[in-house]
Amino acid sequence: MRLHTLIASMLVVASASADPLPSWNEGPAKQAITAFVSDVTDASGPEFVPPARRIAVFDNDGTLWVEQPMYTQFAFVLDRLRTLAPAHPEWKTEQPFKAALEGDMKTLGEAGMDGLMQLLMATHAGMTTDEFEMIAADWIGAARHPRFDRPYTELVYEPMLELLTYLRASGFKTFIVSGGGADFMRPWAEGVYGIPPEQVIGSEIARRFELREGVPVIVREPEVAFVDDKAGKPVGIQRHIGRRPILAFGNSDGDIQMLQWTTGAPGPRLGLILHHTDAEREYAYDRDSHVGKLDTALELAPGNGWVLVSMKDAWSKVFAPAHESSLPEK
Amino acid sequence: MRLHTLIASMLVVASASADPLPSWNEGPAKQAITAFVSDVTDASGPEFVPPARRIAVFDNDGTLWVEQPMYTQFAFVLDRLRTLAPAHPEWKTEQPFKAALEGDMKTLGEAGMDGLMQLLMATHAGMTTDEFEMIAADWIGAARHPRFDRPYTELVYEPMLELLTYLRASGFKTFIVSGGGADFMRPWAEGVYGIPPEQVIGSEIARRFELREGVPVIVREPEVAFVDDKAGKPVGIQRHIGRRPILAFGNSDGDIQMLQWTTGAPGPRLGLILHHTDAEREYAYDRDSHVGKLDTALELAPGNGWVLVSMKDAWSKVFAPAHESSLPEK
Ligand SMILES: [Ca+2]
Ligand SMILES: [Ca+2]
Repeated sequence: MRLHTLIASMLVVASASADPLPSWNEGPAKQAITAFVSDVTDASGPEFVPPARRIAVFDNDGTLWVEQPMYTQFAFVLDRLRTLAPAHPEWKTEQPFKAALEGDMKTLGEAGMDGLMQLLMATHAGMTTDEFEMIAADWIGAARHPRFDRPYTELVYEPMLELLTYLRASGFKTFIVSGGGADFMRPWAEGVYGIPPEQVIGSEIARRFELREGVPVIVREPEVAFVDDKAGKPVGIQRHIGRRPILAFGNSDGDIQMLQWTTGAPGPRLGLILHHTDAEREYAYDRDSHVGKLDTALELAPGNGWVLVSMKDAWSKVFAPAHESSLPEK
Repeated sequence: MRLHTLIASMLVVASASADPLPSWNEGPAKQAITAFVSDVTDASGPEFVPPARRIAVFDNDGTLWVEQPMYTQFAFVLDRLRTLAPAHPEWKTEQPFKAALEGDMKTLGEAGMDGLMQLLMATHAGMTTDEFEMIAADWIGAARHPRFDRPYTELVYEPMLELLTYLRASGFKTFIVSGGGADFMRPWAEGVYGIPPEQVIGSEIARRFELREGVPVIVREPEVAFVDDKAGKPVGIQRHIGRRPILAFGNSDGDIQMLQWTTGAPGPRLGLILHHTDAEREYAYDRDSHVGKLDTALELAPGNGWVLVSMKDAWSKVFAPAHESSLPEK
């Protein structure tokens, strides 16, 4: 028996002894996941998938962590504007900055996508990538969620952490495919999810390399380079991964195309949608929500075989307990 | 001792017993590489780098495989035009197609970048990503190099394959960062280099997701989306990897910025440049070459501590022997 075969056997024996998804209640969602993993890892079965092709993609906001009452990255934008405001006295009168600083969500909403872009560029561009990494890491280490009064990195879903770990132990490579900014997620995704920066796919700002007095830097420019949402998600997957995933997990209409691309081909494939049905432990929302709207995907799910995961029914626990690794590593 | 520590120790013992770089002659290049790897993997030493940060980036053309007498991807373009010509009678008279089909390199050269773009778009756009993957895989499996009369996938450098293997065995993650097309390299890079598609960074064409009669496809559009060369290389690294490499290996002026970005920061860092000095076994070229021009980088190397690897002196062997894995896997 060769060394790596021996090691693989030891690990399989070690992992088979315990339930890999203890926070998942017995039921159709857990059953679909464990049956799929069992099928694609059974080397003697008809559905076997070689490890190199075991690619799993996960939406982030509302799939791996909380997205209510507002996307966490938008909370970052608002905090960052307040931090920068003393150097920008003009924001006291200029929209949409005035509304953002005053928390006037009605005016902000009326400013629409153009207004949002102005806020994004004021907070996400103009610095180097190294500087932005520190800004994002510092913020995520200090900010707290308004309802749960815990760091956002503790408001990741324990059942999803178990699923990520289970998939990786089963030879999968796990990726984030999010509409959020790649460089906003990367400073903490490895510590929190075990997903390294190179497996974080997200929206992107333009970047430019330059030498500043002999020191190489990459500068973040005020221009959107890529939107990793809706039809952008399969494109981001192709750009970044270059092969089609066999498992996709999302929670909103923004994930429809990622689910179609993942499941719309021959061979074993699994599409999953987290349905937020638990107002008590987290939130309950779908068709009418501004954040994480889940409407068309609910219609499409049955015909496509996508598995709906009702938070209230499927999960015995929602949030991960506080633990050291929830803080970004420096 | 925990299981993974035990396994790591066993692997270190197993690998320490043999020279990991048998095709490298003893000398300054080999010495620089082995000393660097030894330093960054010594957990008790001052230069230790955690495995997650052991990112190594490699240019492809002229660094991992032959690029003379023309870039392999350009040989693909010319062959592909001949394949498509029967359906395009207008190419018999229309430039730059006429020149390309006739092998009239002088006229092609005069057509410049605009002409090259026309040829690229005629051969690389208009099909789905799945179709292009098959086209590229079929071509690379059949094409042969004009001088060596061997498949291009056998004209990869054996010493570089050893280096890739050595780095991966030492906990590095290896990436390609090439000016060539990402989707041109991905169908065979895993079989030939052991580098999976998600670790292949290259130039990119625009892509668009759509449903064709209910079937999800990604279509390649006739528009350049990203040029992964020169100042584009650090940007491609940031886009794709999201952290700075600690080792970079290139062979031309197109790699200067990648080398600057990799080595221009504190901590242990290694920049390497392959110098083609071996007309007998491969080719000898640098400052005056149209393909793989190496001029400014030669000037910059000493001041930046970049190690010049002279093919003639540093390598006891150039090409890998023919082996099964040199053909792309389906
Ligand atoms: Ca979401
Ligand atoms: Ca090159």
